[in-house]
Amino acid sequence: MADPLSFEHFDQAWTEKVLGKRGRKGIDAYLGIVATEFSAGRLVAGFEVTDEVLTMIGNLHGGCISALVDHVLGVVMYPVMAPGSWAATTEFKINLLAPVTSGRVEATAQIVSMSKRLAVIRIEVENIVAGQGDSGARRRLVAVAQGTSTIVAPREA
Amino acid sequence: MADPLSFEHFDQAWTEKVLGKRGRKGIDAYLGIVATEFSAGRLVAGFEVTDEVLTMIGNLHGGCISALVDHVLGVVMYPVMAPGSWAATTEFKINLLAPVTSGRVEATAQIVSMSKRLAVIRIEVENIVAGQGDSGARRRLVAVAQGTSTIVAPREA
Amino acid sequence: MADPLSFEHFDQAWTEKVLGKRGRKGIDAYLGIVATEFSAGRLVAGFEVTDEVLTMIGNLHGGCISALVDHVLGVVMYPVMAPGSWAATTEFKINLLAPVTSGRVEATAQIVSMSKRLAVIRIEVENIVAGQGDSGARRRLVAVAQGTSTIVAPREA
Amino acid sequence: MADPLSFEHFDQAWTEKVLGKRGRKGIDAYLGIVATEFSAGRLVAGFEVTDEVLTMIGNLHGGCISALVDHVLGVVMYPVMAPGSWAATTEFKINLLAPVTSGRVEATAQIVSMSKRLAVIRIEVENIVAGQGDSGARRRLVAVAQGTSTIVAPREA
Repeated sequence: MADPLSFEHFDQAWTEKVLGKRGRKGIDAYLGIVATEFSAGRLVAGFEVTDEVLTMIGNLHGGCISALVDHVLGVVMYPVMAPGSWAATTEFKINLLAPVTSGRVEATAQIVSMSKRLAVIRIEVENIVAGQGDSGARRRLVAVAQGTSTIVAPREA
Repeated sequence: MADPLSFEHFDQAWTEKVLGKRGRKGIDAYLGIVATEFSAGRLVAGFEVTDEVLTMIGNLHGGCISALVDHVLGVVMYPVMAPGSWAATTEFKINLLAPVTSGRVEATAQIVSMSKRLAVIRIEVENIVAGQGDSGARRRLVAVAQGTSTIVAPREA
Repeated sequence: MADPLSFEHFDQAWTEKVLGKRGRKGIDAYLGIVATEFSAGRLVAGFEVTDEVLTMIGNLHGGCISALVDHVLGVVMYPVMAPGSWAATTEFKINLLAPVTSGRVEATAQIVSMSKRLAVIRIEVENIVAGQGDSGARRRLVAVAQGTSTIVAPREA
Repeated sequence: MADPLSFEHFDQAWTEKVLGKRGRKGIDAYLGIVATEFSAGRLVAGFEVTDEVLTMIGNLHGGCISALVDHVLGVVMYPVMAPGSWAATTEFKINLLAPVTSGRVEATAQIVSMSKRLAVIRIEVENIVAGQGDSGARRRLVAVAQGTSTIVAPREA
């Protein structure tokens, strides 16, 4: 395998402010997306599947998973960019693999390439359903995605 | 240019029930997605950009556009499938082209290929901002997408 | 519809050098890719399907269509970039719609968005099979693609 | 992590016939693509970068990497499908991460989801350049891709 990426920056303080916090407005707040793990170039974030986000036939609307993917494509970038930069999702591709009807949806985003301007990120989305009786929770891969974030450097003073 | 597709089915009655109606729950209801035009293989649907869906820096969250794309990938299929079938978004790819800060976001979905099992659809997403004074509304292309819907035939009795 | 793009540059002389010419080496020469039309932001280029590029089951190898898409993503950029710039395909997505067994494969690439750094391009690939008897040639859409080219500006002296 | 996939079939004899063999015609033969490792749901295949496939500016034409991706999307399927089935690449997305100028290009394809009809596959493409003096070979990730193969079952007699 190729060497893992190394990152010049990692803003631990920023990640501590964000971890475990639900947004107050916007589509991420609507879905209840919360980041639960950060390391340099990697983010885990997800939401609980409530009745509100199921379609009439009882499945999670794919748009919720798409929005989660778009969201983590940006958030995974913040700790590893030069201070004052911001990141915008430029493009992504998603394959939806299996229907989700309950439990938790969790995306793991990993930066696989990063230059001054662009980063490429791969994302795995899992559905975690609590076990019953003696059995443990079950994790299933429900989507995979791959996308690009553009890094916008801070304006010089 | 290649010949346009022709479609065996077109369920006009279904489109009339859906046109102009906002959903009651789910991510499409949250965004306020409403279908405004249907023809065989083509759908126009969009939502108004409210303060609720803007990020802290004042832009529409890309996840809202992604969710709109996922939504139209399914809805465009219903009028042209055999009665009783249902459609699931299998995969799509989106390029986000420009930030959106106000106005209306409108997706035009066009089926470009359709077999018994799979349809390929292209989508253009425009931002429409009302004109001021003498100038008319301004339309700008803000995203393009391309994806696949899987058609699930009804079970035989 | 959104306004069409306008382009600051269009290097007609460059297009005249390239039109109708087959490369001397490389995958484009192997396939016999030739550009047949250029206008600002638009390119038509294709190749003849020979026995050499068919698989054992008699279909054109999808890799030939993928390579054509990658190729036009770069070539469509040259006439519209600032002199001395070069373009690299950054990413693309392709849907293969129908098998090809003979005739000509032709890609039409259209730039749909262009900034200083990035351009987004949509591509339609058609298969053109000569008619028999009284019938004219038949065109069929066999692939659609969407991708990004990165523009690298010339170094300042 | 989600459980790894398990596969009903694995045609070891087929892999032994294919391993290490260069095709006799077609784009895979032109590039010199050779499969070097097979296991259930996984394939490693690549080619040597020769002067023939470099562009005028000395880089490997991206179309060669795209064609490799398209090729492995099909080949990875054969050992794990029911006997007599065939697989066709339906769609894929590729991000090109870094230029390649020499050495070997190697794709590792991994099936991440498989149903009766469709399989989703992720691919990492590395460039391996021989070391000089005391240093070992260097591997660099040069492309990542994600795509779908459609499985066509054998006709019943």
